[in-house]
Amino acid sequence: MPARPIAALAGGVGAARFLAGLVRVVPPEDLSVIVNTGDDRDFFGLRVCPDLDTVMYTLAGEVDPDQGWGRRGESFHCLESLRRLGGDSWFRLGDRDLAVHVLRTQRLRQGARLDEVTAELCAAFGVRAQLLPMTCDPSATLVVRQDGTRTDFQEYLVRDGAPDDVAAVDLSAAAAATPAPGVMEALEGASTLLICPSNPVVSIGTILQLPGVRALLERRRDAVGVSPIIGGRPVKGPADRLLPCVGAEVSALGVARLYRDLCAGLVIDRADAGLATPIEELGLRVRVEETLMRDSSVAMRLAGAALELASPA
Amino acid sequence: MPARPIAALAGGVGAARFLAGLVRVVPPEDLSVIVNTGDDRDFFGLRVCPDLDTVMYTLAGEVDPDQGWGRRGESFHCLESLRRLGGDSWFRLGDRDLAVHVLRTQRLRQGARLDEVTAELCAAFGVRAQLLPMTCDPSATLVVRQDGTRTDFQEYLVRDGAPDDVAAVDLSAAAAATPAPGVMEALEGASTLLICPSNPVVSIGTILQLPGVRALLERRRDAVGVSPIIGGRPVKGPADRLLPCVGAEVSALGVARLYRDLCAGLVIDRADAGLATPIEELGLRVRVEETLMRDSSVAMRLAGAALELASPA
Repeated sequence: MPARPIAALAGGVGAARFLAGLVRVVPPEDLSVIVNTGDDRDFFGLRVCPDLDTVMYTLAGEVDPDQGWGRRGESFHCLESLRRLGGDSWFRLGDRDLAVHVLRTQRLRQGARLDEVTAELCAAFGVRAQLLPMTCDPSATLVVRQDGTRTDFQEYLVRDGAPDDVAAVDLSAAAAATPAPGVMEALEGASTLLICPSNPVVSIGTILQLPGVRALLERRRDAVGVSPIIGGRPVKGPADRLLPCVGAEVSALGVARLYRDLCAGLVIDRADAGLATPIEELGLRVRVEETLMRDSSVAMRLAGAALELASPA
Repeated sequence: MPARPIAALAGGVGAARFLAGLVRVVPPEDLSVIVNTGDDRDFFGLRVCPDLDTVMYTLAGEVDPDQGWGRRGESFHCLESLRRLGGDSWFRLGDRDLAVHVLRTQRLRQGARLDEVTAELCAAFGVRAQLLPMTCDPSATLVVRQDGTRTDFQEYLVRDGAPDDVAAVDLSAAAAATPAPGVMEALEGASTLLICPSNPVVSIGTILQLPGVRALLERRRDAVGVSPIIGGRPVKGPADRLLPCVGAEVSALGVARLYRDLCAGLVIDRADAGLATPIEELGLRVRVEETLMRDSSVAMRLAGAALELASPA
């Protein structure tokens, strides 16, 4: 099967909204999405893949539109019962969402690989873009706290509320993992590479840790990224607490420096127009756009801008 | 730990209602219940134990009072989502009920035994009677249909609606299983043995297939049973389709013949008062009571009657 024309690296909510715009300006069948699995973990013995599910639900039109993750019109009766039976309930697993985790876990235990299960779920949800987990291997991102403890990413982000006591981010599991079947082929064969507006450290950075991925992107050096930082602040999530851990400035310029060896261009927000020149001085083409995806028309324009920047006339 | 004073063999709804009456006339701490596991099976990779859960929910006051199984005020959002994703939805797994199956499956996968998991769940539900799965081994009851196919019990009962095309009941899995830790001790050490009003073939019959159980009860021959048949018909369930498979008449007398080598007495319904004499002629003491447990006061009187019959003045 030939590679699809467009491949995108993706994390969670920001990527999902961007991709929902993208599949309204190109056929979804043209798109492969390599999704971060560093946030995955088991809850109650069920395999939960937050970024895969956020992208899948969003592309299926099933996502909760307000929070950007989880399922539309969700209820939490099972979780409430688990809590009453003594289980941890800090991770908000909805009743409808649980169906996906139950099916995924069943299929994995039957011996199916995560990429196969993801394809099955996407088919069931009517998602025609190809979603690829970055790896089928263990790849848990660990957050090293200032007191030396290591917590997995969801514990840091959700359970603990993403405090600023981060000493380092440990991506060694991803570095030891093998890219899932199809990942290298998608990145190699696509004519357009996109880096979605996701956390550069724990979403995109995790994918880039996989053996061969960074080298491939550096060799091509034609990707186009979208900055997830607007006016020096992340739209969502803890990027402002994590970028300093890798020595990066919390700004579109900081993102540009992280991506300069991989990318030909970067889309930045209007609020950051003043950074266009220093980013161009890094050797990147720049496009200034509205990047806060309040609605699908903004996401469509942003996706179109990223495609144009990737293929200059 | 010494055996509890009372041990009871139990199936699902009828047993649960009887036991809920019993724990209102004796301290629940005096009671061990050996519960049929022949109906257990996996749904979506989750371990479901219908009889254990029905007894547990009922003793916890959490059961759906109308149907007698499942949880009170239940919703089915996860199951509906599973169905939309292509899963079987004929077994009505509610959102709150799923919490129990998820926790049980997690603990079993962690290496805990079913009796240990059952004790943990009972503790979480505040159930003070001791619930013992009859075995921790595979023990699935199979229904052999007239066309020669073998279906597991839930498929026969729930999916197919308990049709009358039953050729035989295959209890060979139970016959090859080992009683769970505590089961033989509970049956040996109790001063009173009760056989709850459950299906004599696929609930009680399954427990009696376990190596050593029937022989122990025959040696003691002091159990007291409660007939689940009233006026020639089962209160609930397919006993009328299954009793003929073991050559038994669908009547309190048919039940008495099945239990005569195990029991000292049988409680039968007022509608069957005319069968008291032939049952006594089998060598059993008989007590005629209201056995249709419309409410808890009937269940309490019935439990009290069974205890009195077990310990004649």
